[in-house]
Amino acid sequence: MKKIALLGSTGSIGQSTLSICESHPDRFLPIAFAAGSNLEAAFAQCVRWRPKIISIATDELAASLTVRLKAEGITGIEVVYGTAGTVRVATLPEVDFVVSAIVGVAGLEATYSAVLAGKTIGLANKECLVAAGDLILEAARQHNVDLLPIDSEHNAIHQCLRGGAPNEVKQIWLTASGGPFRNTPLADFEHITPAQALKHPTWVMGRRITIDSATMLNKGLEIIEACRLFNLPPAQVRVTVHPQSTIHSLVEYIDGSILAQISVTDMRLPILYAMAWPERIASDLTFDMAALSHLDFQQPDFARFPCLRLAYEAAAASQNHCIALNAADEIAVEAFLAGKLPFLGIPRTIEQVLALTVSGSPASIKDVLASDRNAREQARELISAI
Amino acid sequence: MKKIALLGSTGSIGQSTLSICESHPDRFLPIAFAAGSNLEAAFAQCVRWRPKIISIATDELAASLTVRLKAEGITGIEVVYGTAGTVRVATLPEVDFVVSAIVGVAGLEATYSAVLAGKTIGLANKECLVAAGDLILEAARQHNVDLLPIDSEHNAIHQCLRGGAPNEVKQIWLTASGGPFRNTPLADFEHITPAQALKHPTWVMGRRITIDSATMLNKGLEIIEACRLFNLPPAQVRVTVHPQSTIHSLVEYIDGSILAQISVTDMRLPILYAMAWPERIASDLTFDMAALSHLDFQQPDFARFPCLRLAYEAAAASQNHCIALNAADEIAVEAFLAGKLPFLGIPRTIEQVLALTVSGSPASIKDVLASDRNAREQARELISAI
Repeated sequence: MKKIALLGSTGSIGQSTLSICESHPDRFLPIAFAAGSNLEAAFAQCVRWRPKIISIATDELAASLTVRLKAEGITGIEVVYGTAGTVRVATLPEVDFVVSAIVGVAGLEATYSAVLAGKTIGLANKECLVAAGDLILEAARQHNVDLLPIDSEHNAIHQCLRGGAPNEVKQIWLTASGGPFRNTPLADFEHITPAQALKHPTWVMGRRITIDSATMLNKGLEIIEACRLFNLPPAQVRVTVHPQSTIHSLVEYIDGSILAQISVTDMRLPILYAMAWPERIASDLTFDMAALSHLDFQQPDFARFPCLRLAYEAAAASQNHCIALNAADEIAVEAFLAGKLPFLGIPRTIEQVLALTVSGSPASIKDVLASDRNAREQARELISAI
Repeated sequence: MKKIALLGSTGSIGQSTLSICESHPDRFLPIAFAAGSNLEAAFAQCVRWRPKIISIATDELAASLTVRLKAEGITGIEVVYGTAGTVRVATLPEVDFVVSAIVGVAGLEATYSAVLAGKTIGLANKECLVAAGDLILEAARQHNVDLLPIDSEHNAIHQCLRGGAPNEVKQIWLTASGGPFRNTPLADFEHITPAQALKHPTWVMGRRITIDSATMLNKGLEIIEACRLFNLPPAQVRVTVHPQSTIHSLVEYIDGSILAQISVTDMRLPILYAMAWPERIASDLTFDMAALSHLDFQQPDFARFPCLRLAYEAAAASQNHCIALNAADEIAVEAFLAGKLPFLGIPRTIEQVLALTVSGSPASIKDVLASDRNAREQARELISAI
């Protein structure tokens, strides 16, 4: 029985993780939750799962949750809050496996603490590798910690890497849906509106990630993650546009063989893979090979998607540049959605912030957060000066 | 340095193997050859490679080869002949790896002997698994021998199986080009001529294998091979038609993940994989992922390709039925090419011979050959009675 801590328990990944725990009660027991600000959802998870500990955003919410639990006659759940609370959840001694699914830089401190505590990590938080990859990978090496990626592309790479030794990998290929502007002419890019960019052809997602998918910055962050996680230089992390997203990614070996991973598009699959690893556990998430008719591929266009190029440049430059790329993008996307920046202003802002960034690698999570704040401030200034 | 014995050195697989040895002189040294009846080719291989031993079809050819070598001033190559000679080559003490690439039942005895001698085997001979799978697999288990498949489909499966444990495999998918009659209406099948059937859309191959590709009996033999090699019941070996043959085969795991292997269509790749295993060695057999545009798939049609159904039935019935399927097909294909049997007469003949076959598993290679001769005789009688 693996005992699970769930950072981001009320979000989408958190709910998928609990659905897996529900389906495999003999294998997985969630005992520690870090929720956000959704008191109702946190309360419902306490009622259903009776964790040992739950952390919630603020002390006020913690007080309310404690009152609710008492009123329900539920005892034995420790209620904590804030970053310190999340770290408590992530490092609880009984926990075997930590799902890191808090969105944004908020998840950094707790995930880093979990690595230092020697927990196996299922990693769904992009910032852990994009903004703090140097720190977290070094800590994982020192503490002999396995980092299992929980997003379909890197999870696919992890699976395909089982086909050979690390020094037998020639390069890896991340597949990209290409977003809604896959076939839009370059001339039309300047005039793309938020409403157009928010219509993703394949998935319903959050607003920032939908825009990141439209600019392909999202794929850029995945390139950086892959470089860190699989210890590859940017030149060995390639992108192929594959609109059906049936092949989730591929690994090309030095002998000429390429291994690809295919599955349904359902986050429960990579989560289950990570939680079960090194085993595989039966699921009903079946891909119907017999119904497969065709798969399409095209090359990414770096002229229409400058965010891809910027990500490669940031990956090659330094950890500070990766932090700046991510931070500047988040501010630029907000400005685009608010009508204050044209679509191509997003890569322009990122490029300007990258140009202001000094090479280097923060020595602590605190320093990562400081670099992140600094890049956001630069992005805001650049945008307000337009 | 792996020392290689090459059974079928002058054939297509033999030549590809030697081309690999040529490219990797630091890794592979061919020291023992079993050639067929091509004296010139055998002589040229002796001149180039100076093996310790070479076997040739007959005593007359051996005498001629000895004279030729002497005239050239080449000494130190032992020249042997016939089945006994091939067995000597396959079991030479210094040999580490045996490439089994003699076509037809002629390769059985030598390959079986190599397994008994504990050699690692690169297996390109279909009959070893189709006609003698029970014997050879049992011997391989007893002598702890690795059988590495050298054909693109089973080699792909071998690679994809590295992604999980044997008990985590749900089923495997062999890809099939579908042959020249992939989209031919059922009504036209009775009138297919040898000339039409010999035009394979993708590859130039031998006459029997080209017709086997047109009837999909070839894929049927691969189903049987896969059942034996990977210890799977027929129901867990599926077929998908994939005209481009870019994906060479796939493994579906119990958790819902499918791993696929992609590469150029070049026999050197599976040969290199088998010879290098468990390592991978760099090659220039590069698949250009950046140029990939689309992959198509369709379901095999058991009504138009009864040979597929017959192969599943033989695989489920017994070793004797698999022997009969292969033997009856060879005779029926000869008759079809000679204009003595219509195209659909091939599966009809096989079905009739299978109906006459008694379940069982031969206890020796001698018994396998006897069952094989018996099925051929039955097929000939059935065809001559038409």
